Amino acid sequence: MNLVTNNKWIGQRTIRPDGMDKVTGRAQFAADTTMPGMIWGKILRSPHPHARIRSIDTSKAEKLPGVKAVVTSKDIVDFPIEKGAVMLGIQDMRWMCRNVMARDKALFPGHPVAAVAATTEAIAAEACNLIEIDYEVLPWSIEIDDAIKSDAPVLHEFNKFDGKPSNIVGRLEHKKGDIAEGFKKADIVIERTFTTRPVHQGYIEPHACLISVAPDGKTTIWSSSQGQFMVRAMTSMLSGIPQSDIRAIPAEIGGGFGGKTIVYLEPLATLLAKKSGRPVKMVMTREEVMRATGPTSGSKSTVKIGATRDGKIVAAHGTFYLQAGAFPGSPIRGAAGCSFTPYDIPNLLSEGYDVCSNRSKVAAYRAPGAPIGAYAVECVMDEVAERLKMDPLDFRLKNAAKQGTKAAHGPVFPRIGYIETVEAAKASPHYAAPLGDGHGKLRGRGVASGFWFNAGGESSAQVNITEDGNVVVTTGHPDIGGSRAGIANICAELLGIDYRRVSVIIGDTQTVGFSNLTGGSRVLFASSMVVTQSTEKIIQTLRERAAKIWEIDPEAVKWENGAAHPVSPNAGQFEPLTLEQLAEKAPAMGGPIGAGVQLNTQGADGGFGTHICDVEVDVDLGIARVIRYTAVQDVGRAIHPGYVEGQLQGGVAQGIGWALNEEYIYTKEGKVDNPGFLDYRMPVCSDLPMIDCIMVEIPNPKHPQGVKGVGEVPLVPVMAAVANAIYNALGKRFYALPMSPPKVLEKLESADAAGCGVEA
Amino acid sequence: MNLVTNNKWIGQRTIRPDGMDKVTGRAQFAADTTMPGMIWGKILRSPHPHARIRSIDTSKAEKLPGVKAVVTSKDIVDFPIEKGAVMLGIQDMRWMCRNVMARDKALFPGHPVAAVAATTEAIAAEACNLIEIDYEVLPWSIEIDDAIKSDAPVLHEFNKFDGKPSNIVGRLEHKKGDIAEGFKKADIVIERTFTTRPVHQGYIEPHACLISVAPDGKTTIWSSSQGQFMVRAMTSMLSGIPQSDIRAIPAEIGGGFGGKTIVYLEPLATLLAKKSGRPVKMVMTREEVMRATGPTSGSKSTVKIGATRDGKIVAAHGTFYLQAGAFPGSPIRGAAGCSFTPYDIPNLLSEGYDVCSNRSKVAAYRAPGAPIGAYAVECVMDEVAERLKMDPLDFRLKNAAKQGTKAAHGPVFPRIGYIETVEAAKASPHYAAPLGDGHGKLRGRGVASGFWFNAGGESSAQVNITEDGNVVVTTGHPDIGGSRAGIANICAELLGIDYRRVSVIIGDTQTVGFSNLTGGSRVLFASSMVVTQSTEKIIQTLRERAAKIWEIDPEAVKWENGAAHPVSPNAGQFEPLTLEQLAEKAPAMGGPIGAGVQLNTQGADGGFGTHICDVEVDVDLGIARVIRYTAVQDVGRAIHPGYVEGQLQGGVAQGIGWALNEEYIYTKEGKVDNPGFLDYRMPVCSDLPMIDCIMVEIPNPKHPQGVKGVGEVPLVPVMAAVANAIYNALGKRFYALPMSPPKVLEKLESADAAGCGVEA
Repeated sequence: MNLVTNNKWIGQRTIRPDGMDKVTGRAQFAADTTMPGMIWGKILRSPHPHARIRSIDTSKAEKLPGVKAVVTSKDIVDFPIEKGAVMLGIQDMRWMCRNVMARDKALFPGHPVAAVAATTEAIAAEACNLIEIDYEVLPWSIEIDDAIKSDAPVLHEFNKFDGKPSNIVGRLEHKKGDIAEGFKKADIVIERTFTTRPVHQGYIEPHACLISVAPDGKTTIWSSSQGQFMVRAMTSMLSGIPQSDIRAIPAEIGGGFGGKTIVYLEPLATLLAKKSGRPVKMVMTREEVMRATGPTSGSKSTVKIGATRDGKIVAAHGTFYLQAGAFPGSPIRGAAGCSFTPYDIPNLLSEGYDVCSNRSKVAAYRAPGAPIGAYAVECVMDEVAERLKMDPLDFRLKNAAKQGTKAAHGPVFPRIGYIETVEAAKASPHYAAPLGDGHGKLRGRGVASGFWFNAGGESSAQVNITEDGNVVVTTGHPDIGGSRAGIANICAELLGIDYRRVSVIIGDTQTVGFSNLTGGSRVLFASSMVVTQSTEKIIQTLRERAAKIWEIDPEAVKWENGAAHPVSPNAGQFEPLTLEQLAEKAPAMGGPIGAGVQLNTQGADGGFGTHICDVEVDVDLGIARVIRYTAVQDVGRAIHPGYVEGQLQGGVAQGIGWALNEEYIYTKEGKVDNPGFLDYRMPVCSDLPMIDCIMVEIPNPKHPQGVKGVGEVPLVPVMAAVANAIYNALGKRFYALPMSPPKVLEKLESADAAGCGVEA
Repeated sequence: MNLVTNNKWIGQRTIRPDGMDKVTGRAQFAADTTMPGMIWGKILRSPHPHARIRSIDTSKAEKLPGVKAVVTSKDIVDFPIEKGAVMLGIQDMRWMCRNVMARDKALFPGHPVAAVAATTEAIAAEACNLIEIDYEVLPWSIEIDDAIKSDAPVLHEFNKFDGKPSNIVGRLEHKKGDIAEGFKKADIVIERTFTTRPVHQGYIEPHACLISVAPDGKTTIWSSSQGQFMVRAMTSMLSGIPQSDIRAIPAEIGGGFGGKTIVYLEPLATLLAKKSGRPVKMVMTREEVMRATGPTSGSKSTVKIGATRDGKIVAAHGTFYLQAGAFPGSPIRGAAGCSFTPYDIPNLLSEGYDVCSNRSKVAAYRAPGAPIGAYAVECVMDEVAERLKMDPLDFRLKNAAKQGTKAAHGPVFPRIGYIETVEAAKASPHYAAPLGDGHGKLRGRGVASGFWFNAGGESSAQVNITEDGNVVVTTGHPDIGGSRAGIANICAELLGIDYRRVSVIIGDTQTVGFSNLTGGSRVLFASSMVVTQSTEKIIQTLRERAAKIWEIDPEAVKWENGAAHPVSPNAGQFEPLTLEQLAEKAPAMGGPIGAGVQLNTQGADGGFGTHICDVEVDVDLGIARVIRYTAVQDVGRAIHPGYVEGQLQGGVAQGIGWALNEEYIYTKEGKVDNPGFLDYRMPVCSDLPMIDCIMVEIPNPKHPQGVKGVGEVPLVPVMAAVANAIYNALGKRFYALPMSPPKVLEKLESADAAGCGVEA
């Protein structure tokens, strides 16, 4: 299905430039960094889900030999959460400053209340124990149903919903047509309610940083993040040090998946370094990661779909309650905005509710919110199709969004590839294959689709030609999904040279122009756009220089196969001038050859995927196992197919974990009871089949190479696909995640065939 | 004398941005860097001045536990010195590859013959001792007179002079008029011969690097140098790794003065790292620095000047023999090209001879060659003036080069400031002050002038506006002389903002465009030119964005005091839009604000200085001491006067050391006998008076801020000024440096009043 035929490098599975570094251990992650005189920072965290901080006495800690600095919320610039509208975004300083360090109240167990820097980690930990805090313990709530009760303890008293203090901190809706009228036209209406549990992004590398602050405020940060500019901006705002004085150097990143788009440690390490005059290193334990960094939201969603007998959806209504954690701001936009988007539904209401409770603040997680919403919508789609006795893919095809469809969240679609993903799924060997014999285990197949917005935004690039005629490209985004390899392919293609001659570097904040986060499935889309423009400027310079040497018009010079050539014999008879030759002549022809572009990129198209999942359920043990999986996706153009497949496979693996096992389990004291990879059960290699990928390439017409974001879509359909497959296997439907062994056994023993759904 | 009155930051003594880092020890020098798994490299050096290497057996060293790699010349890419014309430049790979590691012959004591990397420095040193080398020891020469004898042992047999193998490896001349005719018109002719000894640049920080090489060749270099791009290029050529795969990161530099414009360690550490698969650190000892890194040339110069009775110079002839060390390439261009240049001499022949001998290869040292030539010329000028009974400054004024004068080395001068320096010296309080009573010590005063070409060349800059409306400037030159402070002043001036809002960063090779060496007195000239152009582009963008907001023509918007304003009330009534405001609006107006420029800069004007020196000689101890010193210089425009004065004072301090004490002393075995700061006597603070500076500002019309290079001129006149002062004190003239206590005592005891000079 690979569109690309005339390209030499675009579409090739080139060797990844960072591969050797990573397999040999040479790659520098944030925790690998050390500095002379370095000391260690540790965080004291609230043991309570909800408590007023009456006072903090750090005097004993400060006196402990080896302690060099102690900071509390009074050291941090405050952006009062009480001020301004609520519905705080994922990077709003108002919540972030208080999430980094509790101010008046501790809002979840694990909420930082003080931080210490000392000569050793052990002394820092001991000093934390010497800090005396007078807490007034308050009532708390963890789950959505508890948090939205009228008598629930309210986390942020200033927030009102329906005129009363409430933990419902935001609401949005997308509306199209009139659902009341729409449902009247329906022959079948199915409404179901679903719940999901918070799950963690599960990156291998815990958050880490090393920070040095000079007495004049000049600051250097080495840290692992999804955006060195985000780290610089957040640290600047919380420390009061101007951005121009902070050099945030991106380390290699050991996974992020959205969870490293905000800061936890950097502002604290900066303040500790400033106070102590020493470089401060902080590395979270896995337990800290699990207790105090963003999982995604738990949710409660109700979805109602009405269709005519001939399979046309006439109305749909979704209500998505998402947990925000301790501060407002959950991904309700992804849940309410993406879930119905694969379908052209004339009457639609999609509502999102943002709910606070006494658990750690949620963070972005791969297509934030969309998998939660899709789980509910795609399960109901499955039920409707079954009721209509339609093949579930045919049902989707009949209602598929296409060019010209107006999405409820706003846009009228340009040429999109959703239909092609469904058709490719239908035509796949997987869909045609029989399920086969489970040898006593029950087998089933499910399908589901998904959508993610994708994003553009700010990117900067600089392309320089070395004196020996090779190429160095600098961009400003941490490389998570293979952007270095993709950019090398594109730049080599444009210049007509071997891709090994192109080195791609991730610049720090002070050596590359502003570049927004690695997230939103934006990096290759946006950075290849600025790299392309920069490379085109360079080609223009090379043509001009060749023209000058040949004394002909620059328009009479073309660039091909890494060299300048006269466009035709009429332009003159000249030996081609290679990049190496023109690089050598650079000093005499005006100077070094380089060009940079900084843009707020536009034109990111949304992405669609359709998945097929086969499961096998061991009815004795309650274990559901995915035995075959195919992810079909419109990937725009696969610049590096191996990496695109990696994204698809990684998303599916995460979705299978979310569907089958992952969940935060709480004690009755309101604390996470499984804060480690032993008890928080992520899928490992032996839990998973090889994930098959089918890349449909419908090039994005607004991008020079047709690139679409591909990193987030693959997580969106997975839980629904797995749930539909399990239903197909068992004949009983789950309305709650995870579908873990105890819950499967429970379901098998229950008489209920349809769970908590309400059928019209 | 400061020209600048309307500027807010240009001309201000702003706080240096790197100051806090340096005084607190936070600044990272190359030797401060460490990496996990790092091992240590050590060099085995030849004990012989001249020896053929018959064989090298590294097997015992390789077997020593802890040894991870051994390299010899066979591991290094060779650029045969035998090929191509001689007269090798200061960065020619042909000599550099064999200077870094001896190939067929060891050419000086200290010449590397092998290198070892091991887990500790001690093991590496022990392994060096286990390497067995079969040397055929050859006859050798150290001094010029010995090296140019017809039967001298020839270092490079392929080199011919006058048709015979010779150690004279190059000659150049600058010629104007006809000296034979010129001397006929002279009423007085004085001819003298002078010698100087090699002196070391004496930087505090020994050469150091840490290098990591991945198995695929991706290389990271941290090192101290005067040019990360030079390090990248040299390492690339000697290791065969393409430049695009080498990231050379400049550490802060603890002095260079020309001596760090070439590589010694980096190629060896790269090869050791590549072989061992481990990061390799190498740090020279002071002894290695003194034995094997570039001092400047020793010299033998003969200068003859003829003048008419009324004080007009009619002819001059200079012959400058400079030591190149073990490989061709000494700074004869500086000696022959600069020394007569302050004067308008109708008939001139200035010849330079490049002489090899068995001593370490010379490297650039502050105005390379010019102080050597000026010492001879300015001493003869002093004698001629005395004979003419003219004030020595009046004699110089009478013959001074000015706008329109054709210099023997080529250019016709534009507006230059030489005359102004002599006039300022004449008018100075110092020149008017009596010498005063030496209380038994003899006092004298001398003057001298000097010239240096200065340089432009390649520079690259990127200027970015941060999201909070501050400024980050990236350039590609290690900051030795205060370029960061100067650039911050200029950029703040152009943008009309506080200079503390501008951070200046030195980028590494992969994140900034090609930028040539820090040297030649080019950095502030060249980099401020590209920074100015970049900043002007940014101002243009800011004006355009303001115009768009106001819906007026960009031409109707001016940029002043850090904000966009309508040019006149007619353009519209608008509140100014500040840089901060426009930065905040950047995402919605096209994206980040930044601009970069890469240029081969042109238009560097030469620089002139005139110095006045008072000495006091203790005739019992033979100690000559400088008691007052004034350096006058045409500095173009002093962007940061404090730094300019620092350059003047530093140059004078080095010249006083060169004049009075510094020299390489050799044993009869041909080895340096004083390779350390205890025996190699550099001036310390207590040896020096406060150096007074008079900055004459004749702006360079070819530079947007009028900048001229100021770093090298200050060393040029010093030895002559000191020598002339000592003559004035003693009535006896020295024709050899250094004028150290034993030599002063010897001179005082000799009957000879004129030394080795020959008088016409």
